[in-house]
Amino acid sequence: MRAARLVIAMIRLYTYFRSSAAFRVRIALNYKQIQYQPIPVHLVRGGGEQYSASFGERNPAHLVPVLEDGALTLTQSLAIIEYLEETHPTPALLPGDPAARATVRALALSIACDIHPLNNVRVLRYLKAPFGIDEERRTTWSRHWIAVGFAALEQQLTRSGTAGHCCYGDAPTLADCCLIPQVFNAQRVDCPLEPFPTIRRIYDHCMRLEAFARAAPAAQSDAE
Amino acid sequence: MRAARLVIAMIRLYTYFRSSAAFRVRIALNYKQIQYQPIPVHLVRGGGEQYSASFGERNPAHLVPVLEDGALTLTQSLAIIEYLEETHPTPALLPGDPAARATVRALALSIACDIHPLNNVRVLRYLKAPFGIDEERRTTWSRHWIAVGFAALEQQLTRSGTAGHCCYGDAPTLADCCLIPQVFNAQRVDCPLEPFPTIRRIYDHCMRLEAFARAAPAAQSDAE
Repeated sequence: MRAARLVIAMIRLYTYFRSSAAFRVRIALNYKQIQYQPIPVHLVRGGGEQYSASFGERNPAHLVPVLEDGALTLTQSLAIIEYLEETHPTPALLPGDPAARATVRALALSIACDIHPLNNVRVLRYLKAPFGIDEERRTTWSRHWIAVGFAALEQQLTRSGTAGHCCYGDAPTLADCCLIPQVFNAQRVDCPLEPFPTIRRIYDHCMRLEAFARAAPAAQSDAE
Repeated sequence: MRAARLVIAMIRLYTYFRSSAAFRVRIALNYKQIQYQPIPVHLVRGGGEQYSASFGERNPAHLVPVLEDGALTLTQSLAIIEYLEETHPTPALLPGDPAARATVRALALSIACDIHPLNNVRVLRYLKAPFGIDEERRTTWSRHWIAVGFAALEQQLTRSGTAGHCCYGDAPTLADCCLIPQVFNAQRVDCPLEPFPTIRRIYDHCMRLEAFARAAPAAQSDAE
């Protein structure tokens, strides 16, 4: 006789396996052991399911991730993770001290603002048409912004002396939630990572953690 | 007989009058009535003072703003404002409730991640060379991303029913710190703002507030 298990997932995550912004939130949910129901949104098929009217109702910006917690609808990966941090504080993804929190947030934002937006699907589409930039030059563009951003990040991680196994100390923070998906993107466009030994070391460590491994693109139900 | 006033500005802000990321932090500092010493960094002259070795010591990413609080050096405008919020909580730039905080942060991030990075000086430079995109098409690119981002933002502001005189309620928040500088940028590239009545209304209101007016590009000592 088996006991029936009733799982009510109050949290739903609109996600795409390859979206690095969705990947960040999946890491945070796993790390905090928050049960959630993933709802795949295919960003490429048929011009992109994110442009459907029903998804536009959830997020007028037509971007994943979107997190629904009961009747609440939240957008923007970093705002979602800060919300999870405030509503599920343990284990923490931000340190306690304001200066340390600012350092972690700055590392996260240097990826979320200075690298990732330039290599988004919609931006690469605009470069293709109307700008007529061919695939090889678009890939060079992607690699360029990753290399510029990672060069600054590598310096920040080594100089501050605060990096341990992870970006800040030995436990994952918001910064690692952003860094690991960005390394995945770097690998997709064959951006050389040799100049960034600290980033590579942190990546190798985090990917051995279950919360990160289970959030990876290939581990998602909508992976291709 | 006048009493001598000794002002020790412990906080220094590396800023450029036209940088909208620096503008965000200037608003927050003014709103919280935090005295600071502005240190101008010319982003254009001589290829950009942000690329000097001494500035690179402060921020390896060679971007403004940088805030120094005593021996502490902070980068990334949103991380700096969250730090100011935690160290100078009154008047608040974030509401108290986690859901409301997430809403405000998402509005701010939709500007800081989805609009602003695409129209940065260094990105427009890359479009010019090596991509060879002429000025007219670069301006069309800038207007495009502002219009796409503002269209989503306008919907979010009107649909949520939470906008008042400002993006969230009647008092300024982190969202307004980001929105007002982005409207300045929109005006610089002649992006039509007629389709965005809520954004225009909030802009008009905020620019009547001293904290915003005093943070505007034309009010800076390095304005041209």
